[in-house]
Amino acid sequence: MLTKENIAEKFKILQDNICQAIENTDGKGKFIEDLWEHHGGGGGRTRLIQKGNVLEKGGVNFSAVQGETSEALMKQLKLTEKADYFATGVSIVMHPNSPMVPIIHMNVRYFEMSNGIWWFGGGIDLTPHYVVEDDARWFHQQLKEVCDRSNPEYYSKFKTWADNYFFIPHRNETRGIGGIFFDYLKNDPNQAGTTKEELFNFTYAVGNTFVPTYTHLMQKNKDLPFGETEKKWQMLRRGRYVEFNLVWDRGTKFGLETNGRTESILMSLPPIAHWEYDFRPETDSNEAKTLGLLQKGINWID
Amino acid sequence: MLTKENIAEKFKILQDNICQAIENTDGKGKFIEDLWEHHGGGGGRTRLIQKGNVLEKGGVNFSAVQGETSEALMKQLKLTEKADYFATGVSIVMHPNSPMVPIIHMNVRYFEMSNGIWWFGGGIDLTPHYVVEDDARWFHQQLKEVCDRSNPEYYSKFKTWADNYFFIPHRNETRGIGGIFFDYLKNDPNQAGTTKEELFNFTYAVGNTFVPTYTHLMQKNKDLPFGETEKKWQMLRRGRYVEFNLVWDRGTKFGLETNGRTESILMSLPPIAHWEYDFRPETDSNEAKTLGLLQKGINWID
Repeated sequence: MLTKENIAEKFKILQDNICQAIENTDGKGKFIEDLWEHHGGGGGRTRLIQKGNVLEKGGVNFSAVQGETSEALMKQLKLTEKADYFATGVSIVMHPNSPMVPIIHMNVRYFEMSNGIWWFGGGIDLTPHYVVEDDARWFHQQLKEVCDRSNPEYYSKFKTWADNYFFIPHRNETRGIGGIFFDYLKNDPNQAGTTKEELFNFTYAVGNTFVPTYTHLMQKNKDLPFGETEKKWQMLRRGRYVEFNLVWDRGTKFGLETNGRTESILMSLPPIAHWEYDFRPETDSNEAKTLGLLQKGINWID
Repeated sequence: MLTKENIAEKFKILQDNICQAIENTDGKGKFIEDLWEHHGGGGGRTRLIQKGNVLEKGGVNFSAVQGETSEALMKQLKLTEKADYFATGVSIVMHPNSPMVPIIHMNVRYFEMSNGIWWFGGGIDLTPHYVVEDDARWFHQQLKEVCDRSNPEYYSKFKTWADNYFFIPHRNETRGIGGIFFDYLKNDPNQAGTTKEELFNFTYAVGNTFVPTYTHLMQKNKDLPFGETEKKWQMLRRGRYVEFNLVWDRGTKFGLETNGRTESILMSLPPIAHWEYDFRPETDSNEAKTLGLLQKGINWID
């Protein structure tokens, strides 16, 4: 029987493994750790890497918190009777130094209530400052493989979900090339592969795919040359990342509105971001090409 | 009889006067103008000043737009019957080069519906990177004077409204030292001074107080010395400005969610902003002193 404590313990191990592998690949940056407590019970381990060889700023957060379900959450879940909740997860955002290395986000989470409701959620999505089509295909292939091992329908469903989730309506752009996003993954007695153990195994496999996927992209791209144009573009794309996270990301908004730990939630923000009024890349530039690929519904895998 | 066209015309003149005065005081930056059309009718004049002597980036926007009331707006107004709306206003945010010069925001607006509902709204608030108490008192005194000329109760009421509006709950900080904020200012047959003409005169007087107030603060502070510490702090405070505008500012959120002109709405964002994990100023530093003054309910006027 997989308890919430088992799941939290596994997520801690995942955080440890990811931090170790990221330090090894970066070669210079070291994580610092902040331990914190949640007002309703439990707490977290916030880990931050800065000024590395590859990473300018990255966060790998673990938390396992509990409390009384807030009005906001009850409303979101359409519940009328109060119940305590328990939530645990690992959440990552990495902002690299080089505009040639993509920004990445990964999150896996488990939610359980005292009324017996539980579910898993998670996702990985990639935000290249410059979309390299081969890398995009390779990235989506990794996600498809981890999905296919659990359920042949997952990739297509969760890829579409990511396209819709990581979208900036006021820019009519996706945040990046998407990836997978899933939520409310729970037992369905009529469907094989949906026990708590099986859904945990899938969610954990998504978490474990982070290291080989991102370290490959770090190593492949970290030494590519770039200049002022690319650096400026990176800063503007980081501005878009801020816009998505603060205006549209439901996780961020929910955290900020329900008295979450602000510094851990906002670790997803870049160290520096720029805004320029009505910036438009030159026709046929690499920047314009990237903008053309920041759209929903691109099928990266044939 | 003051028509919506009269009001829009007056707001255009206000925009012209402000741009002229700001150029004169800056001494180098010149406004560029973008004319745009709104999908439902009407449009705007977006004006941007950049790389001035005093101002790094500033926007002075005029708009007069109309259309069918959206579901979102009807819900906000608690209306069940559809009606066309007309909205006009002038909106300003200025980000100076120097951390010793405060950021300022000013907005005046008029809203009218085809069902006869109309109201005025507006406000001015100041966000010094470093709170200088004498300047804060002087600033609030200017606002009190313009309020008192219309109604002796306005300043106290609208000052409290600003404290509550320009507040960042997830930081437990005000955006700056506040100012005045008012909305839904409409005729009350039982109260003197609330005809459309009188309420317009008050709103317009608030708009006209922008130039003498901000040009004084520009000139007084623009040549003060500063170093790396102050510049870094400015960038972090700009990060907070971004957080307020994107997470909490109802005007910004409403604009982005209702298909407003994104580039005009987001002109309020600074050209560059920084985030640093869990930054805490040194005890008794000027930065710590400023943080201590970013709280609601400070009575700046004896």
